[in-house]
Amino acid sequence: MIDSKHLDTLAAIVGRENLYSDKAHLIAYSYDATRERFEADAVVFPRHEQDVSDILRYCNTHLINVVPRGAGSGFTGGALPSRGGIVLGFEKHMNKILEIDMQNMVAVVQPGVINKDLQRAVEAVGLFYPPDPASQEYSTIGGNVNENAGGMRAAKYGITKDYVMAIRAVRPNGDIIKAGKRTIKDVAGYNIAGILIASEGTLAVTTEVTLKLLSKPKMTKTAMGIFGSVKEAMEAVYKTMAGGVTPVAMEFLDNLTIRAVEQTFHKGLPVDAGAILVTDVDGNLEEDLNLQLSIIEKIFRENGCSEFKIARDAKEAADLWFARRNASPSLSVYGSKKLNEDVTVPRSALPELLERFYAIADKYQIKIPCFGHTGDGNVHTNVMVDGKDPEQVKIAYQAIEEVFQATIDLGGTLSGEHGIGLAKAPYMHMAFTPEEMALFQDIKRAFDPNNILNPFKMGLV
Amino acid sequence: MIDSKHLDTLAAIVGRENLYSDKAHLIAYSYDATRERFEADAVVFPRHEQDVSDILRYCNTHLINVVPRGAGSGFTGGALPSRGGIVLGFEKHMNKILEIDMQNMVAVVQPGVINKDLQRAVEAVGLFYPPDPASQEYSTIGGNVNENAGGMRAAKYGITKDYVMAIRAVRPNGDIIKAGKRTIKDVAGYNIAGILIASEGTLAVTTEVTLKLLSKPKMTKTAMGIFGSVKEAMEAVYKTMAGGVTPVAMEFLDNLTIRAVEQTFHKGLPVDAGAILVTDVDGNLEEDLNLQLSIIEKIFRENGCSEFKIARDAKEAADLWFARRNASPSLSVYGSKKLNEDVTVPRSALPELLERFYAIADKYQIKIPCFGHTGDGNVHTNVMVDGKDPEQVKIAYQAIEEVFQATIDLGGTLSGEHGIGLAKAPYMHMAFTPEEMALFQDIKRAFDPNNILNPFKMGLV
Repeated sequence: MIDSKHLDTLAAIVGRENLYSDKAHLIAYSYDATRERFEADAVVFPRHEQDVSDILRYCNTHLINVVPRGAGSGFTGGALPSRGGIVLGFEKHMNKILEIDMQNMVAVVQPGVINKDLQRAVEAVGLFYPPDPASQEYSTIGGNVNENAGGMRAAKYGITKDYVMAIRAVRPNGDIIKAGKRTIKDVAGYNIAGILIASEGTLAVTTEVTLKLLSKPKMTKTAMGIFGSVKEAMEAVYKTMAGGVTPVAMEFLDNLTIRAVEQTFHKGLPVDAGAILVTDVDGNLEEDLNLQLSIIEKIFRENGCSEFKIARDAKEAADLWFARRNASPSLSVYGSKKLNEDVTVPRSALPELLERFYAIADKYQIKIPCFGHTGDGNVHTNVMVDGKDPEQVKIAYQAIEEVFQATIDLGGTLSGEHGIGLAKAPYMHMAFTPEEMALFQDIKRAFDPNNILNPFKMGLV
Repeated sequence: MIDSKHLDTLAAIVGRENLYSDKAHLIAYSYDATRERFEADAVVFPRHEQDVSDILRYCNTHLINVVPRGAGSGFTGGALPSRGGIVLGFEKHMNKILEIDMQNMVAVVQPGVINKDLQRAVEAVGLFYPPDPASQEYSTIGGNVNENAGGMRAAKYGITKDYVMAIRAVRPNGDIIKAGKRTIKDVAGYNIAGILIASEGTLAVTTEVTLKLLSKPKMTKTAMGIFGSVKEAMEAVYKTMAGGVTPVAMEFLDNLTIRAVEQTFHKGLPVDAGAILVTDVDGNLEEDLNLQLSIIEKIFRENGCSEFKIARDAKEAADLWFARRNASPSLSVYGSKKLNEDVTVPRSALPELLERFYAIADKYQIKIPCFGHTGDGNVHTNVMVDGKDPEQVKIAYQAIEEVFQATIDLGGTLSGEHGIGLAKAPYMHMAFTPEEMALFQDIKRAFDPNNILNPFKMGLV
């Protein structure tokens, strides 16, 4: 527990109305999508960058933990005050789109801006911000940058880090740092923005982000392929990407996921299919989209696709996407507890990865339905068990460890988009050598020698 | 001078034939494109990563400076052993393309691979590695990664950092680090590859790089626009990029540069033009290229373009590119000494930037011909004086300082692609605050507490 005199000082910095320490608010800020709960001593809403600097300098001096929080939509506990201290919230004040610079195709935003609000604002002027995590309607750019969020469009357009041109941030000692510029190229000094991206709020507090924008492609088309087996579908994925076409998205559902959606929504899905792939292509010319789709259809059919449908309009496109968009909630038909991971492998390893996952499911006699962003090698793996049966839950965690091991064996990563936080910290030793962990630790110490900023996350001590 | 017993130990690590300490070799490895010269105590050629680790561990223990060197083609002294010690060379052994993975569209290379050799190898199998610095025929991937090299195609395809998926590197203490994966997404642990890119060999020694490849676009077309004034041309640049088309390159020559090329090569160039823009577009469909060119022509003509030529074949394209490709050497007509900078600004600031540069030239009564990669805001600024006149040289350096100040005032960077090294170190205080320099210093210390790796570069101490 923090001494109340510290809370008084912090309240004096930001104004009493910008510090909450009542029970109701502490509970509201105690959780994220992991369903773990930790209460902070206070939630503080900085009004501007100088507040962030003053808060951090004070907390650094008095060894008070500080946890920056976006929308609390993370899957790994990155925004949870697991060791007490204060939570920094940006949704009250630091939530503005500061500028959309049409000439340079750049947006400048505060950390509390919601991803989809930015997308809408730039699309209204013909521009395009591609990163679209599933949380886009509520997650914030500050959180997206600190977790390096991905999304459906990553296959063609990459992830958050590919759009960050500059970051303003405050170090734990209060120093304000401008990293990067509104320029395509900048090689002066170390790439500080590069190390801040995906640092899960452990190195510095983001106060402003400059994002690259693209021209909005004029048209998009959607197609779906039905495959006899997952293996064939996974082969079609990497052969398509290597075949000279880069779809915006190439998402998959396996048989278990198809059945779950059908059982929940009765849409007439092909419940005997091994897998479905749904894909979007975009561009500025009808001929270009048609060329892309014809290449995709050819490769799909060469790899066991029995049916290939192209949506003729937006309604048909929405129909083709329905199963994918409703995959996650439908899986509850297989159990009340879902251990949902976001492992990612080189695309060519997808066929073997899925085979190994189903072998793990067989071994433990559980269900592991899979779906996700196969266009970039990212598979949402869902270990489903009965949450009320402790033996089943234990088995689920054993299975997850084997899921991670299979992923790492195939050259993959523990996390494609959710980060490590608390949830995956126990598995870091599987993915990194002691020397690599030592380097992470050295970097953490260089930014935050007193270990006050989101401490003890990512397997750091 | 290093004690000869240290050289004996290093020779025992790599084999006597892989350590040069004779005068001729020390001279050969003493310079780069800056024409500064510093001799090392020895040049050592590691055979593999373990050699690099053993060398660094030994040098770290005995406080021997280590300077990794690519082709020595840098413009800022990054590869120069300015404080003695040993130079690490990769051209003897660690110069292999280890793998071209067609399925995942990835190349794995050792640091000594020459950029153009990689481009040729991947193009032979239909793939594409876009970064193409002017030094591409001799500069190495290790150097490209450590300097974050750009090139002509950056306007559409970005720079080296946009293609680095993973780096293997050795810390000064000998620890071997694998950073990143052969996956599109990876958010486990800090983004170590992100901070190693552009670190100018000061943090770790790169031993292997995994690079993202693209499909090779099927066709390219070249066009040239002639403009009445630089201002109009610069406005055409950013309006084109914001107009929904992304040319591969959009390069410019100003009037002084056009005249210099004409005086040297007599090609019938428009010597009264304010500026020329040369642009390439690419894609897989003739219609797409034609659409892009029609948008470019429209925007060019709306902004003072009096003549717009589209090359009908490869020979005509080479003709349109001739002036740009021969700009740099032609400038010697204006003086024997060239201070050549690579400042970069947000594209919309280009018109004012050029105006300020010409005002600086007027003030000092010197010539500052400019050309370069305007598609990404990067201007090669050439302060030309008589190198034998000390007063002129002094004036040139005053002008350069004002060039940097104008760039920074307009939101730009000291360097778009050449890095800081020794040459730009004196200007770092103009671009970075003491707090930002302190952070750079902290990061350097975290990786290299004994300050043995390429020390005293980038304005670090």
